Amino acid sequence: MLRAGVDLGGTKIQVAILDPNLDVVGQCRVPTPQDHGSNGVLDAMIGAVGTALTAANATADQLIGVGVGAPGQIDKAAGTLSHAINLPDWMGTVEVSSVMRTALGVPIELANDVQVGVMAESRLGAGRPYDSMLGVFCGTGVGGGVVMHDTLWLGRGAAGEVGHMVVEPDGAKCTCGRRGCLEAYAGRAAMEIEARHRVKHGHKTDLFDIMEHKGRTRLASGVWAKALAHDDKMATRLIKRAEWALGLAIASAVNLLDIEAVIIGGGLGCRLGAPFVDRIREQMMPHLVLPERPPQVLVAALGDLGGATGAALLVEHTVAPTEQLGAVLDPDA
Amino acid sequence: MLRAGVDLGGTKIQVAILDPNLDVVGQCRVPTPQDHGSNGVLDAMIGAVGTALTAANATADQLIGVGVGAPGQIDKAAGTLSHAINLPDWMGTVEVSSVMRTALGVPIELANDVQVGVMAESRLGAGRPYDSMLGVFCGTGVGGGVVMHDTLWLGRGAAGEVGHMVVEPDGAKCTCGRRGCLEAYAGRAAMEIEARHRVKHGHKTDLFDIMEHKGRTRLASGVWAKALAHDDKMATRLIKRAEWALGLAIASAVNLLDIEAVIIGGGLGCRLGAPFVDRIREQMMPHLVLPERPPQVLVAALGDLGGATGAALLVEHTVAPTEQLGAVLDPDA
Repeated sequence: MLRAGVDLGGTKIQVAILDPNLDVVGQCRVPTPQDHGSNGVLDAMIGAVGTALTAANATADQLIGVGVGAPGQIDKAAGTLSHAINLPDWMGTVEVSSVMRTALGVPIELANDVQVGVMAESRLGAGRPYDSMLGVFCGTGVGGGVVMHDTLWLGRGAAGEVGHMVVEPDGAKCTCGRRGCLEAYAGRAAMEIEARHRVKHGHKTDLFDIMEHKGRTRLASGVWAKALAHDDKMATRLIKRAEWALGLAIASAVNLLDIEAVIIGGGLGCRLGAPFVDRIREQMMPHLVLPERPPQVLVAALGDLGGATGAALLVEHTVAPTEQLGAVLDPDA
Repeated sequence: MLRAGVDLGGTKIQVAILDPNLDVVGQCRVPTPQDHGSNGVLDAMIGAVGTALTAANATADQLIGVGVGAPGQIDKAAGTLSHAINLPDWMGTVEVSSVMRTALGVPIELANDVQVGVMAESRLGAGRPYDSMLGVFCGTGVGGGVVMHDTLWLGRGAAGEVGHMVVEPDGAKCTCGRRGCLEAYAGRAAMEIEARHRVKHGHKTDLFDIMEHKGRTRLASGVWAKALAHDDKMATRLIKRAEWALGLAIASAVNLLDIEAVIIGGGLGCRLGAPFVDRIREQMMPHLVLPERPPQVLVAALGDLGGATGAALLVEHTVAPTEQLGAVLDPDA
């Protein structure tokens, strides 16, 4: 009785296989195909689930379901994904669930990738000891979610846009078209635009040399980490600016919600780790109404596997209560 | 079977008597005594409950309990109120519940005044049709609260400090000592400090003439309303600034929580009413992630009575289930 979770991103597909104790018993990571549209991506996801099952010494008939965390607009009931602008050539509304169900023979559950990642941290990661938390995931953009009484608050379906809390009125241009959003300071896409802008105006940095040396075309989290380690001035300044914006937005959220913990994740959060999170905490402190009783501010514990693990947790709702208790009743399993 | 609610403020004490249908059947409003410390205030509250009962054609033996909404730090279990800096000469920790219980002979429930006001709007006021809402109460300061699934979210006890969400980094000095908080722009105390500062620097306004003409020593909500009606330039600018800050902070909260409605209350909110709220909505819109689906932004419906009504709702938890169904079992009632 295994469940699979698929974390579908613009550059990689990560799969985790979970046993009934929710331990990861197999995994697989492949690049997201860039040239064959949604069909290519769906094939790669199905293939990666198979590879991860093999890594777990298991076969498809042991699977009870697959959860998929994906960016974009999700219709859970229809099992479709649209407006997935970070996915290569993802045109219109794509029937993810039916295609994967046909190929894998098990129920498929779709949900938003960030929401799935936040729930994973709450249930299995750094947020586990806390009844309430704010997840802040810094990647290409900045996403997140609020967990209250161990339940993700969805609002009218779109809650968790911590990246679009305003930190500076009429501030930096955000990738969403507005100004002054947190994401305009702490999202990798906006940070790269700012770095390129500064280079164009004569500022020096090793960021783009490191990028090329690593064979990348974008300022990935590892590029920022390496530049920071080399005391690159521009990188240090832009990361400091991100920490400042994160501290400010998080403090506003904490003053409003008085949650117990803040979990910093995403590619950038996990890669820069504890020193980054410590500096964000420092930036948050001066704005708290109750600085004598701050929330815990912690690095996400599940790292790159958080999204896939969280996606696997989606399967839970589709299985019989006996299985939830860990009983293995399937004679084939 | 009646319940009483007391809204204890720095300048006035408002009492409402509610029947089992939660209709207000009697009320009383008296100034908060300024000269006799907490004993004077407690006597005035007890007296006002008696007067409100008389107004309801009722007697004390028909009361099943009294709820009190108060500013400051509340120990619900002990029934005490401390750190009530807005109350005249409120020294140390005062046993509100035991004193009132002895005088009135019924259980007393204490809670935070703003939280009580937000719950009243959610259950009986403008928030009634909505499952989730943000209450923003503009008075001397700016308080509020988040209601989710018809329940006030308390966090670790201090949630709802919407007035200390940061709207402008290193911005205007807030009465809390920090900078750039919403309250520094939209709280009456901070707005008055700014107005006095501008007058000192040669700016003209009728605000203080209107204040004196009204026999007030502070820029009360009615003073602001009158100055606005007269197109007083400084008043118009400072209210515009407040609307800007409110729109910004509310948009950040909506992006984070995707709640259905925002209810604007408090002395200033209720006094300036719909035109004020419409302008706040306008200021909010440009910052929303989903402007095509904004939350409802509404004026609080219970006005000055909201606090007292909400305080009366506190009593509910102390009565027998039969009474909650509206049954009147007490032969004396």
